Amino acid sequence: MVFKVTILGNSAAIPMLNKNTTAQVLQYEQYTFLLDCGEGTQIQILRYKAKSNFKAIFISHLHGDHCFGLVPLLSSMSLNGRKEKLLIIGPKDLKNYIESQLSFTNAYLSFEVEYITPQLENEIVCENEYLEVRAFSLKHRVETYGYVFREKEGPPKFLVEKARALEVPPPLFKLLKKGISVQNIHGTTIYPEQVLGEKKMPCSYAFCTDTAFYPDIVPYIKNATLLYHEATFKQSEVQKCIDTMHSTAMEAANIAQLANVKKLLIGHFSARYFGMEQELVQEAQTIFKNTEYAEQGKTFFVE
Amino acid sequence: MVFKVTILGNSAAIPMLNKNTTAQVLQYEQYTFLLDCGEGTQIQILRYKAKSNFKAIFISHLHGDHCFGLVPLLSSMSLNGRKEKLLIIGPKDLKNYIESQLSFTNAYLSFEVEYITPQLENEIVCENEYLEVRAFSLKHRVETYGYVFREKEGPPKFLVEKARALEVPPPLFKLLKKGISVQNIHGTTIYPEQVLGEKKMPCSYAFCTDTAFYPDIVPYIKNATLLYHEATFKQSEVQKCIDTMHSTAMEAANIAQLANVKKLLIGHFSARYFGMEQELVQEAQTIFKNTEYAEQGKTFFVE
Repeated sequence: MVFKVTILGNSAAIPMLNKNTTAQVLQYEQYTFLLDCGEGTQIQILRYKAKSNFKAIFISHLHGDHCFGLVPLLSSMSLNGRKEKLLIIGPKDLKNYIESQLSFTNAYLSFEVEYITPQLENEIVCENEYLEVRAFSLKHRVETYGYVFREKEGPPKFLVEKARALEVPPPLFKLLKKGISVQNIHGTTIYPEQVLGEKKMPCSYAFCTDTAFYPDIVPYIKNATLLYHEATFKQSEVQKCIDTMHSTAMEAANIAQLANVKKLLIGHFSARYFGMEQELVQEAQTIFKNTEYAEQGKTFFVE
Repeated sequence: MVFKVTILGNSAAIPMLNKNTTAQVLQYEQYTFLLDCGEGTQIQILRYKAKSNFKAIFISHLHGDHCFGLVPLLSSMSLNGRKEKLLIIGPKDLKNYIESQLSFTNAYLSFEVEYITPQLENEIVCENEYLEVRAFSLKHRVETYGYVFREKEGPPKFLVEKARALEVPPPLFKLLKKGISVQNIHGTTIYPEQVLGEKKMPCSYAFCTDTAFYPDIVPYIKNATLLYHEATFKQSEVQKCIDTMHSTAMEAANIAQLANVKKLLIGHFSARYFGMEQELVQEAQTIFKNTEYAEQGKTFFVE
């Protein structure tokens, strides 16, 4: 099971050289999703060799540093001949935002787009055989959504020591994991039930940007395996967070702790902290130890 | 006198890794102008350390590869606190294109914008004490303008040998060039008229993209010092040029020859020619010898 997220950009407000605005690629098995789409996301996809046959694109809100790359990306997908339908999930103005730009630039899309705007808190906005994605409101200056990607049911634990004891050749382990019987080195049939344990806890990835400190989201992201939460300022600049409806690193850590998540990623740091990213991480770690910087180009596994 | 153009991008239709879509920075003395603004132009400005306190931005046409970077750039200028009025020159829909995106993304500009749409062929759309800029129609699928930046009057030639003979210290040459009297090493006053010759021919830069082969523009770009002309395809793909209203490298060279320009720059090559740029240059050179590739990151002097 592959469940991972690659950070394509994490800069707040203005891109810098080698530091793009927000975009993340989430992959679950063969499915790929894009989360936010700052300017230049299509180039970041090339730079980090991310998969880009997106099933769906999730936009948190319509501030430029989270959506300026979207119409350029859709235009290029179209010029490259995409035919598959695309889901685009986000605020209610997103459809008009996209369609007006396409119209002004005399572009049309070679594929169908289905727009989805979350209607109810914590409702499922998208799902497939593995995952369900729920949306909930964040607290920002404009209509903004957080998203949580949760496994429908964790796969059973594979008991590797038991499979070895039964003398199954290691290349066949992946078949057993998928529930397929195999033969061991003596030609004896080994059934999946012999080597599969209890079902694992479902893994989940929560994406929360941009938002003020907002404990109302805690029930929706409870026990997440990995939480990305914006942290635009240090606690010493908490007044700036109040004025602009962003979070401090400490507030992000507070949310992680309240929600009992396994690991916290923080990003969307103000440009003033360029080169000082670890200071924000350390601030968060005073409250929530398992915090890491969502560094551009890095891939994090949700497991 | 500094008169130069820096290529920030030259890719047609879709950006590639390390190859952005069209944007150029033109500098004349202390004045800086932007010509087209493909996605990621603000990052290219940082990458190539180009001056960015633009007096005016010229947009050729509203295809995404020439304008997707514009609203992101304006937003960043505003976040950086620009106060100075900005001229934006281009097609009639440009104002609505910009203002609708600003509205959707809840952004406002910290500075005034004056929009100018060319009304008459070859009319002056913008001028200062050094330069006049004229616009003219190109032949493309949508409303598209070419621009020519021409010195109002060439400065007089500086007779360096004469200045040396008069024993003027070389650091003072620049004052004489500006018409200011100086003292030579013996304390004798040397007047500018003693070391300035005839006025130079005015230099000019012509920017023509995107366009089919269109000899109607020749009178407007006649005798240009430097002509940038798109060359999307090789002559062997001339039918594609006819279908999409672009030019071949050979057609760009034909225009350069007809207009008797001093030097031709070509770019906006189709992605199919990636790594084969010199083949298009060589094709153009069979007709117009002084042709060069408008390579990203390069600066060309207009002199």
